[in-house]
Amino acid sequence: DRWVMMGLIGFSTGLVGFLLHQMISIISTLKWDNTQEYLTRSGLALAWVWATSIGLLLVMFGSAMVVILRPSAAGSGLPELIGFLNGTLVRHIFNVKTLAVKFVSCICAVSSGLPVGPEGPMIHMGSLIGAGMSQFKSDTLKFDIPFFQRFRNPEDRRNFISAGAAAGVASAFGAPVGGLLFAMEEVSSFWSMKLSWQVFFCCMVSTFTTDLFNSAFHNFKYQGQFGLFKTQSYIIFKVLESLDVNILMFIPTVVLGVLGGLLGGLFVFMNLKLARLRRAIISKVKQHWKKKALKIVEPCLIIILFSTASVLLPAAFNCSPYSCYLSGEKQSPQSYSPRCLVEEKGSQTEVDVSLYTCSPGIVIRDENDSIAFSNKTFNQVATLLFLTGEEAIQHLFSRQTHWEFNYLPLMTVLILYFTMACWTCGSNISSGLVVPMLFIGALYGRIIGMLLVSMFGVKSITTDEYWAWMDPGAFALIGAASFFGGVSRLTMSLTVIMMEITNDIQFLLPIMVAIMMAKWVGDFVTHPLYHALLEVKCIPFLDAEPVIVHEGKSVNLELFKTSDAMASPVHVLHSKESVSTIAQLLLDTTHGGFPVVKSGSGMENHQFIGLITRLELSVMLMNSCLFESADSTSEDQPDISQLDYQTVMAEKLVDPVAAEQLFHTYCEDPQYQDLYINLVPYVNVSAPAVPQYFSLHRTYIILRTLGLRHLTVVDGYNNVVGIITRKDLMGFQMEEKIGAVLANRLEGIR
Amino acid sequence: DRWVMMGLIGFSTGLVGFLLHQMISIISTLKWDNTQEYLTRSGLALAWVWATSIGLLLVMFGSAMVVILRPSAAGSGLPELIGFLNGTLVRHIFNVKTLAVKFVSCICAVSSGLPVGPEGPMIHMGSLIGAGMSQFKSDTLKFDIPFFQRFRNPEDRRNFISAGAAAGVASAFGAPVGGLLFAMEEVSSFWSMKLSWQVFFCCMVSTFTTDLFNSAFHNFKYQGQFGLFKTQSYIIFKVLESLDVNILMFIPTVVLGVLGGLLGGLFVFMNLKLARLRRAIISKVKQHWKKKALKIVEPCLIIILFSTASVLLPAAFNCSPYSCYLSGEKQSPQSYSPRCLVEEKGSQTEVDVSLYTCSPGIVIRDENDSIAFSNKTFNQVATLLFLTGEEAIQHLFSRQTHWEFNYLPLMTVLILYFTMACWTCGSNISSGLVVPMLFIGALYGRIIGMLLVSMFGVKSITTDEYWAWMDPGAFALIGAASFFGGVSRLTMSLTVIMMEITNDIQFLLPIMVAIMMAKWVGDFVTHPLYHALLEVKCIPFLDAEPVIVHEGKSVNLELFKTSDAMASPVHVLHSKESVSTIAQLLLDTTHGGFPVVKSGSGMENHQFIGLITRLELSVMLMNSCLFESADSTSEDQPDISQLDYQTVMAEKLVDPVAAEQLFHTYCEDPQYQDLYINLVPYVNVSAPAVPQYFSLHRTYIILRTLGLRHLTVVDGYNNVVGIITRKDLMGFQMEEKIGAVLANRLEGIR
Repeated sequence: DRWVMMGLIGFSTGLVGFLLHQMISIISTLKWDNTQEYLTRSGLALAWVWATSIGLLLVMFGSAMVVILRPSAAGSGLPELIGFLNGTLVRHIFNVKTLAVKFVSCICAVSSGLPVGPEGPMIHMGSLIGAGMSQFKSDTLKFDIPFFQRFRNPEDRRNFISAGAAAGVASAFGAPVGGLLFAMEEVSSFWSMKLSWQVFFCCMVSTFTTDLFNSAFHNFKYQGQFGLFKTQSYIIFKVLESLDVNILMFIPTVVLGVLGGLLGGLFVFMNLKLARLRRAIISKVKQHWKKKALKIVEPCLIIILFSTASVLLPAAFNCSPYSCYLSGEKQSPQSYSPRCLVEEKGSQTEVDVSLYTCSPGIVIRDENDSIAFSNKTFNQVATLLFLTGEEAIQHLFSRQTHWEFNYLPLMTVLILYFTMACWTCGSNISSGLVVPMLFIGALYGRIIGMLLVSMFGVKSITTDEYWAWMDPGAFALIGAASFFGGVSRLTMSLTVIMMEITNDIQFLLPIMVAIMMAKWVGDFVTHPLYHALLEVKCIPFLDAEPVIVHEGKSVNLELFKTSDAMASPVHVLHSKESVSTIAQLLLDTTHGGFPVVKSGSGMENHQFIGLITRLELSVMLMNSCLFESADSTSEDQPDISQLDYQTVMAEKLVDPVAAEQLFHTYCEDPQYQDLYINLVPYVNVSAPAVPQYFSLHRTYIILRTLGLRHLTVVDGYNNVVGIITRKDLMGFQMEEKIGAVLANRLEGIR
Repeated sequence: DRWVMMGLIGFSTGLVGFLLHQMISIISTLKWDNTQEYLTRSGLALAWVWATSIGLLLVMFGSAMVVILRPSAAGSGLPELIGFLNGTLVRHIFNVKTLAVKFVSCICAVSSGLPVGPEGPMIHMGSLIGAGMSQFKSDTLKFDIPFFQRFRNPEDRRNFISAGAAAGVASAFGAPVGGLLFAMEEVSSFWSMKLSWQVFFCCMVSTFTTDLFNSAFHNFKYQGQFGLFKTQSYIIFKVLESLDVNILMFIPTVVLGVLGGLLGGLFVFMNLKLARLRRAIISKVKQHWKKKALKIVEPCLIIILFSTASVLLPAAFNCSPYSCYLSGEKQSPQSYSPRCLVEEKGSQTEVDVSLYTCSPGIVIRDENDSIAFSNKTFNQVATLLFLTGEEAIQHLFSRQTHWEFNYLPLMTVLILYFTMACWTCGSNISSGLVVPMLFIGALYGRIIGMLLVSMFGVKSITTDEYWAWMDPGAFALIGAASFFGGVSRLTMSLTVIMMEITNDIQFLLPIMVAIMMAKWVGDFVTHPLYHALLEVKCIPFLDAEPVIVHEGKSVNLELFKTSDAMASPVHVLHSKESVSTIAQLLLDTTHGGFPVVKSGSGMENHQFIGLITRLELSVMLMNSCLFESADSTSEDQPDISQLDYQTVMAEKLVDPVAAEQLFHTYCEDPQYQDLYINLVPYVNVSAPAVPQYFSLHRTYIILRTLGLRHLTVVDGYNNVVGIITRKDLMGFQMEEKIGAVLANRLEGIR
């Protein structure tokens, strides 16, 4: 039953996550290893040609797939998902084709070296799997397996989609609890505690599957230890040296939080500007194929620029000494900077830094395996750009490596990455923002950490426990959290995700403070990214509580009546309505539902019975056996359910075009004016209605918490006077209407 | 504003947590250190006398305070809190006196050595602080500071109480995210994402405060390093040796989960039986003071028994060798068991085990600080019983200590602790169940771990990485999670709390599986503990979704009408009602609210206007200036708000006795039959109403999600026909009514 389905969704999502991870890892290893080899053997030019051409090829393919086959697979898909779960229908987002395109395009985008990550698409893919698995049928693939038919209702579908999205996060980050919280905090608009337990299971299975396979295989090669979960393969950014937190640490943490909020706001702002600019440019182009070409050219342009920068920029920086460990007499001071010799006992560099064109030198280790002598050098910028984003973040998070990166390289990479990531995120390729966000945050976090080191010197954990918190790697972690928070404005889910991907609970409090500050500051500057994108994409989204601003002040909706915001007059149907009227109504309007009122003469008798949806009306019109003449006594209800439940509850019309033609016939042929349908058996009598004097705030809450699309407004005698829909409660709509009401009131006072 | 208040609540709760922790730590250190000293110097008898008498003294004091001063401070206070936040008023739970009594009683109970923990009371205290701080006034202390008056409404109060409860968890466990999730999952019935962000902040501040002070002070002595957060002082059960997870590990994990569910169910079952038995016994005693004495005697009896067991039981067990490390020639085989010499290289014992009466021997360490020779011995049972519960759990969680505890000691302690904890938890002293739950779980978890070690031998992480997961300490951790899960049926909050108190993310998946299994199995056996206690305490609790069972099958409430469950006829008031009628109504009934209908003649005109509460009516009756004669034209509404908003919205009546006398006068004096009150300006027109044909399921959802107390039921013409309250929707009420409806239907078919 439901648990099996949750398990299946978790397993499939986990498997997809594993495949994605392995494919990306293979391709990017191939790319960067070869680039490094060309660089050392044949020089800069050939390396550039190789890196850029392979990147270009991948991006072109990935982008072309999206643009030509399925434009809805572009970007991360998160705003669409959030909009859908809030109650808006978005076309094509849950389609098998979208899943396939997204999968391939995401592999291409990430492995090509674009500043993107696989996490966002992974979430969308998870929800796609959730949507597809639970229905066990596909209109695109034309199959329909009669299992789990009882899940084919909107509520269960929505729940499984939420579960899939959560499983996507769980698989991408290896963070089951984080995934659950993410789905709860950001993705879903409706949530029950019962659901959270099932999603918990789903996330668990998903993480389990991904971890299990990732531990056993490396680049699809079996590692021999099936079932042993190696920490390094499933905790992405594992922190090795744990540090105790100090209260003084919260000063730079607050600075980082504020920076995160500001930079995050800037990022969102630039993103929106770019999205609008892109739309403006494309709308200027007339021909259809040129538009498409333009859309494909854009990511290609980005990859060329970014690949060039990645390969050539390191050449502008000097090589840095690999180690400052000098023990015994084997010193050779000329190969180190003077500062290195004076200050940095105890501070060293990671093993797997990027050499670029620097000399590997020789490394001599003493019997304790610590470095006795080394004149190995490495390139700082290459260590950040010459590999995948995730590896670069690991370098930035590394602790006890105070001088591994200096100011200039960090600043350079920060500026490059910030602009490029901002540009990429809106282009027509499947891409996620999480890795870039962490990367950018880690960069400026490390810069702040470096500032502290410059001011107070290197404090090692062994020599000075109380000051050991001054580690640039630690601040890189906090910075990453703050920028992620500043862009997405997530709170608790982000905290848990950061905790789960770094395995470092000791830094929980600083991370929380940074996220907190980033959200506070960020909320002053802009909307959160996903909500801003919802607006750009014109998806109506209802917040949990209404926030209406009129002339700079927020308005208390308790002081307004429902009738102030309702749409009126409203198209109503009588409980016994002529065929031609219904057909005409369906043709004239695009509303999704209509209130049904009691048949009767005169305006006094418009008692509200319930609601009927457009689809139900259409289905009824298609079945002419329902039609009856005017004088048949409908009150007797001789054959109460002439249509069975399944037919009326159809998910969509089989042939909308034919239906429309039929309705035209109904309208034009006068004989249908005397044929009636008795709507009573089909009306949803459990459709809520509110009186017109109801406070607007309450109305909003009812519509939102009960997840309604329409809310009928009645007067004191239960007569229909208006209707409230989602769109009537959208911010700008409300602001307009309430502005008018306020103006009237002012008028009245004068 | 709100943030300041959240910060204040967090800070105060954190401070209280710190004080509690330090006090308990001082007293119990004093107690156990002296006991050990008496034991070594003067023998068992004196040690027993000392331990028992000091425990008895503490328990007597703590219990007497609860019983005499404030019975509502007994137990953990969680069921009452959950009930309150679900919408039921529980007397005295948010009172300054309760806070003080709870604080002292909790210190006494925990430090006396009873099998209880401070976590449950800490949660209640947090919510008390939240309730008190946000109102800034106290009826008991007779003060009323005019700050934050705008928080004096039920919604904000409820939110601050949730926040306080979350802060309590955050402070008690050092788990800010866990606290937030706990409040969300278990404590609150209403939750919004906006609230979760504020609670997040509150928890952060709370944990921060507790950690900061706990790091800086030890037994109230300043440690010299203010601001340095030492890991060991704020991560309660820190796991030191991390182990990789293996897929084979999930087999014993599932076993543990099932065991957790079963034993947890047994625990709940016994708890309920005991609670009923206790009530039956106490109700047999007639005199008031005897009842009280009995209530005080019970915990005293428990402490005498438990203290005796703790001190005397270890004497029945032999001493165990301290170490199996034998390096070089300094061996002396005769002092070790043969198995120890053969198998257990790499397995050792913790440093701080309890000696009891065993010989300390001598310990010789070689230059690498590993033990070269030792004939030190220790007592296994004393290591579990001769200290506080938290320390004992740390011993059980310790890794690489395969043979530290053997089967027999573990089983003995398990049985003792299980029964004692079960008994204590319902007695009249302020006590929490978390530490006992973790302890019991860790005990059987370690037994299962031992079984594996017995079967497959000791596998050390250095010698055999793939099998290193077979560590009894690791299974103790999983067992603790499973038992906690089996009793409380928490899922995600428990996972996060376990993660935060152990700092071991690698074990996330096994812990999740164990919790999952425990919940599944447990749900087959009994209700979760807190919900079962809600039933025992007769607090009506509405679940998020209705579960109604009729004749063994669950009933689909969509198939029933609201009118099937509503209470009818209902007391209605007319918009213009005579004073005597209102007074009579208030005296005759105890309902909290009444529907108001339009004035008019005949039954046809009962149009529903809105709802008015008992309190509002009472306040109006107290203000005779509102009374008007029958013929005054109320429709004109000459003076629309004769009473200002503040007066009508009073929180409670100033003098209920005087009010009642006044109402009697109104009823008896005929002059008031001709005096009327116009209710219209005071009616809440935003009170929802549902039609009588509405599906019962929907009605339940509306009442529950909107958090209503009354829901008026109207017919198609908006005439009041009935009312639905929380009590009408309680499980047994519904089952009764629906049973009647079903019987009628069956009748109809025949």
